[in-house]
Amino acid sequence: MLKVAIVGASGYTGVELIRLLHCHPEVAVTCVTSEQSAGKKISDVFPSLRNRCDLLLENLEPVRVAEKADFIFTALPHKAAMEVVPTFLKLGKRVVDLSADYRLRDAKEYEKWYEPHMNPELLKGAVYGLPEIRRTIIAGAELVANPGCYPTSIILGLAPLLKKKLIDPASIIADSKSGVSGAGRSAKVDNLYCEVNDGFKAYGVGGAHRHIPEIEQELSLLAGRELVISFTPHLVPMDRGILSTIYAQPAGAVTTAILLDLYNEFYSGEPFVRVLPAGTFPSTAHVRGSNFCDIGVTVDERTGRIIIVSAIDNLVKGASGQAAQNMNIMQGFPENLGLDGLALFP
Amino acid sequence: MLKVAIVGASGYTGVELIRLLHCHPEVAVTCVTSEQSAGKKISDVFPSLRNRCDLLLENLEPVRVAEKADFIFTALPHKAAMEVVPTFLKLGKRVVDLSADYRLRDAKEYEKWYEPHMNPELLKGAVYGLPEIRRTIIAGAELVANPGCYPTSIILGLAPLLKKKLIDPASIIADSKSGVSGAGRSAKVDNLYCEVNDGFKAYGVGGAHRHIPEIEQELSLLAGRELVISFTPHLVPMDRGILSTIYAQPAGAVTTAILLDLYNEFYSGEPFVRVLPAGTFPSTAHVRGSNFCDIGVTVDERTGRIIIVSAIDNLVKGASGQAAQNMNIMQGFPENLGLDGLALFP
Amino acid sequence: MLKVAIVGASGYTGVELIRLLHCHPEVAVTCVTSEQSAGKKISDVFPSLRNRCDLLLENLEPVRVAEKADFIFTALPHKAAMEVVPTFLKLGKRVVDLSADYRLRDAKEYEKWYEPHMNPELLKGAVYGLPEIRRTIIAGAELVANPGCYPTSIILGLAPLLKKKLIDPASIIADSKSGVSGAGRSAKVDNLYCEVNDGFKAYGVGGAHRHIPEIEQELSLLAGRELVISFTPHLVPMDRGILSTIYAQPAGAVTTAILLDLYNEFYSGEPFVRVLPAGTFPSTAHVRGSNFCDIGVTVDERTGRIIIVSAIDNLVKGASGQAAQNMNIMQGFPENLGLDGLALFP
Amino acid sequence: MLKVAIVGASGYTGVELIRLLHCHPEVAVTCVTSEQSAGKKISDVFPSLRNRCDLLLENLEPVRVAEKADFIFTALPHKAAMEVVPTFLKLGKRVVDLSADYRLRDAKEYEKWYEPHMNPELLKGAVYGLPEIRRTIIAGAELVANPGCYPTSIILGLAPLLKKKLIDPASIIADSKSGVSGAGRSAKVDNLYCEVNDGFKAYGVGGAHRHIPEIEQELSLLAGRELVISFTPHLVPMDRGILSTIYAQPAGAVTTAILLDLYNEFYSGEPFVRVLPAGTFPSTAHVRGSNFCDIGVTVDERTGRIIIVSAIDNLVKGASGQAAQNMNIMQGFPENLGLDGLALFP
Repeated sequence: MLKVAIVGASGYTGVELIRLLHCHPEVAVTCVTSEQSAGKKISDVFPSLRNRCDLLLENLEPVRVAEKADFIFTALPHKAAMEVVPTFLKLGKRVVDLSADYRLRDAKEYEKWYEPHMNPELLKGAVYGLPEIRRTIIAGAELVANPGCYPTSIILGLAPLLKKKLIDPASIIADSKSGVSGAGRSAKVDNLYCEVNDGFKAYGVGGAHRHIPEIEQELSLLAGRELVISFTPHLVPMDRGILSTIYAQPAGAVTTAILLDLYNEFYSGEPFVRVLPAGTFPSTAHVRGSNFCDIGVTVDERTGRIIIVSAIDNLVKGASGQAAQNMNIMQGFPENLGLDGLALFP
Repeated sequence: MLKVAIVGASGYTGVELIRLLHCHPEVAVTCVTSEQSAGKKISDVFPSLRNRCDLLLENLEPVRVAEKADFIFTALPHKAAMEVVPTFLKLGKRVVDLSADYRLRDAKEYEKWYEPHMNPELLKGAVYGLPEIRRTIIAGAELVANPGCYPTSIILGLAPLLKKKLIDPASIIADSKSGVSGAGRSAKVDNLYCEVNDGFKAYGVGGAHRHIPEIEQELSLLAGRELVISFTPHLVPMDRGILSTIYAQPAGAVTTAILLDLYNEFYSGEPFVRVLPAGTFPSTAHVRGSNFCDIGVTVDERTGRIIIVSAIDNLVKGASGQAAQNMNIMQGFPENLGLDGLALFP
Repeated sequence: MLKVAIVGASGYTGVELIRLLHCHPEVAVTCVTSEQSAGKKISDVFPSLRNRCDLLLENLEPVRVAEKADFIFTALPHKAAMEVVPTFLKLGKRVVDLSADYRLRDAKEYEKWYEPHMNPELLKGAVYGLPEIRRTIIAGAELVANPGCYPTSIILGLAPLLKKKLIDPASIIADSKSGVSGAGRSAKVDNLYCEVNDGFKAYGVGGAHRHIPEIEQELSLLAGRELVISFTPHLVPMDRGILSTIYAQPAGAVTTAILLDLYNEFYSGEPFVRVLPAGTFPSTAHVRGSNFCDIGVTVDERTGRIIIVSAIDNLVKGASGQAAQNMNIMQGFPENLGLDGLALFP
Repeated sequence: MLKVAIVGASGYTGVELIRLLHCHPEVAVTCVTSEQSAGKKISDVFPSLRNRCDLLLENLEPVRVAEKADFIFTALPHKAAMEVVPTFLKLGKRVVDLSADYRLRDAKEYEKWYEPHMNPELLKGAVYGLPEIRRTIIAGAELVANPGCYPTSIILGLAPLLKKKLIDPASIIADSKSGVSGAGRSAKVDNLYCEVNDGFKAYGVGGAHRHIPEIEQELSLLAGRELVISFTPHLVPMDRGILSTIYAQPAGAVTTAILLDLYNEFYSGEPFVRVLPAGTFPSTAHVRGSNFCDIGVTVDERTGRIIIVSAIDNLVKGASGQAAQNMNIMQGFPENLGLDGLALFP
């Protein structure tokens, strides 16, 4: 049994990791930390865990955490992660970090969107953990930067097209919609039930969202050239789910049939990507609670544009499920171990 | 008092018309029809109306309806509308039709997207009733085709730019999101609570939605040339509201400040269009139940694209409120009479 | 025009008062205060108000408020209200207080459930403002204590039975369910969207809710003897609405028909109480945004119990609508002035 | 591997059975039927299943079903179940029936609440499958009548008190609230998103709901005497979950501490019942997707009443999870096999 710590367990990605790992036959969660709720049982914070996971939440003392666990998930806000990850690595622990702190290769980009990086020397060795793109390197990594939720949906949606150079890289528009759990569990008026319910809005319009550098870094690598995109996130009155509607101009003549062949081949054998048949498009409701990314693709015959629609559960494939998938790869477990649960519908 | 009939009153646009006209000081609803519920009181179908509007629902016999009312709202499905509207017109009644039947100027377009038109001779005289664009002609019209909900949000969002030829007309992408009331009140599995709640999906992807010809007709008129757009509708788990996120390539150099000046001037004096300050974007929650269209606009500095976000209540500015606004214009009432209610928030 | 101030305008009852008074022909809101948001426009806090009510939020300085307005609504938390209400009264202003501070006649009861009262001498003159029960006294009051939301639904549900002594006063159980806006607008984890959505829970179980003394005070007055009730509040994932399901043992033989006659007579002529026909029960959806209280009543033949179901919008008849209704009565306006809006459905 | 058929697989309990059994290591679903969707893949009806369960839906021909499976779940509407269950039994198959057809011991009661029973001779041998009450008999049963969702929540809530004769059996009031999936998946206006969302209502008020005879049968058996209850179901705008708030008069002096001891002892060792600590009450959000029944209990000191609050997921412990639990017991599998998944929160 692999002993696992979840650092920052009192947020939504923390409790989701516990839910997923609870069904994982090779893993035991042995340590959970929370600054806010240290001293409480995790099941007092999340009563859904009662009688199944009643660990005490501890203060985050990296050395003590490292004594209790061999594998570390850091589910902390950005900045808080880079304060402790180096210690875990020095102590010989493998880490999957769910924050943004190790996703960007370039410390200057990190500083531009966030703040000065505290350990830029680690960025080179950190692996951006999108298994469908970078499985082999993940397997050998000590530090995996778990991708953001929006980026996961957009990169998986575009990877086949960019790899094959089938679209104009300057033409990409990603119009994304997220459930509210993506905003985390901190008490803010904006995320109150009555502020969100029965409403829909855009935010970060015009290129302001911090997931942009991460998306562009990965898309640029796939395309083999620098590119910028338009990205507009929106807030949907639902708990979970991200759906990205992505528009791009084809580089040459394509048809829906050609695209579907391409996607089916590109994702052939992938346990968690489902390419939908022609004329079928995903709903977040059909991936809720599961690690799937569902993708539909079409050519808009009237305008010539390619439209890709991808859907994930932001807390699973967009965070904790992907983190567990990365752990499976790093540990040599079957990649889908503990992650085969079907979506909860309805 | 203007005697008004609502033909097809047992749907959501019907009950919304009754709600709005109930506070209108110059109007009395004297006749309501419904094929499904004829013989019942409208307040048995919609208990929200009890003690305030308890009219009996009648079968739709145009001549009898015309005896009871001087102004007719037809809130019927397409095709059903064109079966009765000619009779109302012949009997000298003014009509606002909320269906799609008289929105397209070209009967062939109608046939392509719907079916053969039964009275194409009426299309020429019918006025597409978007007051902000066509107020004067509406005032004198006998038959106003009330715009669709998606089109209202998109046309109002783009009108200033197209009029001023500030964007490349071939570059328009409208990514729209609608609440569920837009799907009407008929019993379909797809619209059941459990199918919709806590999920988000696209539909009609790739240029399949019937609002497209109407949008393109009006945008082309504004642009002074034929154009086609990419339009993707989505379903949001909420009752009411449409938000359209619209992308376009500027024709020359623009800034957010220039755009805001343009929009503020274009919509100056409009009672129901609110142009939001720089950096502010609308939410459907802030127009819920009101006749407002809120618009935010920006230039995405990183990609050069213009992004417009517009929000309406699909049942008010997107249907019944706009219908009442058209009636006010046609009858010479103050345009905002009975329509000044603020949004219900939360 | 009556000049009105809303003290504590940045909460949900504050914005609801503005919405309702906006359509009131005899009232002008001339002053709004908020400690948190002083200096901002109220329409920056609530964008639904933009272009219709753009007043600046001020700090709460009672004397300055009193200079600007002749009638004061205090929409403050308990305790904050009793710090300022005496000043308004001394300055000759009439006050409707939406907090709990003047609802209890007995300062000791107030202390037991809240804290020591700061001006107990005012309790005697304050009028518990439930118009259906106490219309005449309200008309002459200087200080009206606007009833709580749960109490309104329960007292209106039981008044006819208690007045006529048709039930055993010891047998009352009120099982109440509220939308989330009842919890106010402060930033708490418990009220985050993801904590509330798609879940249902009881709270304050076993007689802990602070609305209990107020309910029992009024029911006891109606019954002519002291009584205690079981009251269990629940949280419903919706913005607005309270539905109370009330159980009581009849004091003698009754039938549903007898009860309906009684309720219809008791509430005959009431503008805002709708007694539903036999076999029909209310939904909060049908009063959403309106000042109605809908009541259904039946005898459970199998057990002999009487069951009453009452529904209100907690922000309207349960707070701001009732406050405006009280103002109408106090000022001699028609009681329904500005309050005739129909429910927003859907 | 046990070969299992799900008869009536295109409803919500059907897809939930597939979800749960998908993670069951001893079971293979080999046959799924649906009259409406025969010929389609089950994953075309429920895209959440795609790539994991793509069985073809068949017409219901009992003999053919029985050739393909050794264990049958009938997830049909009442009446449809009793048309086929006898055949399955004759062919030597064990059956868990999720309908109401075999829950009542007395065919006359069945006829009173439903219609004449077609095979009343089977009622005697059918076992009402609530494992916590009747585990041993279930183990040997050929036909298990899976309990209704409301009954499960109420019987588990009251069993300890009735067994110990601690309450007056005539005093029971169960005020229950259910998510919308309990209403099934058929297309009805009442269950449309816009009819349900942001509203709350009671239905079947006054003793009209068909779950009553089943609840009273089981409670009477526990109490050792006939009893009747008041039961009021309500509809909550959420997908899943039932919460029952139950009131009863104690037969003698009790305290919350005594009750908690009793409940903890009564449910000691139960894998799926969690008795909450004093002052803590359940939320459906914390059992969503799991097979738990969470119970909180208290004495209302002011009125002397006992209040029990119980929460389940209506589709899991209230239907498909309990059905799988019964199968485990019948087959001698560990009772929690495949059912240990934690609730999805948020």
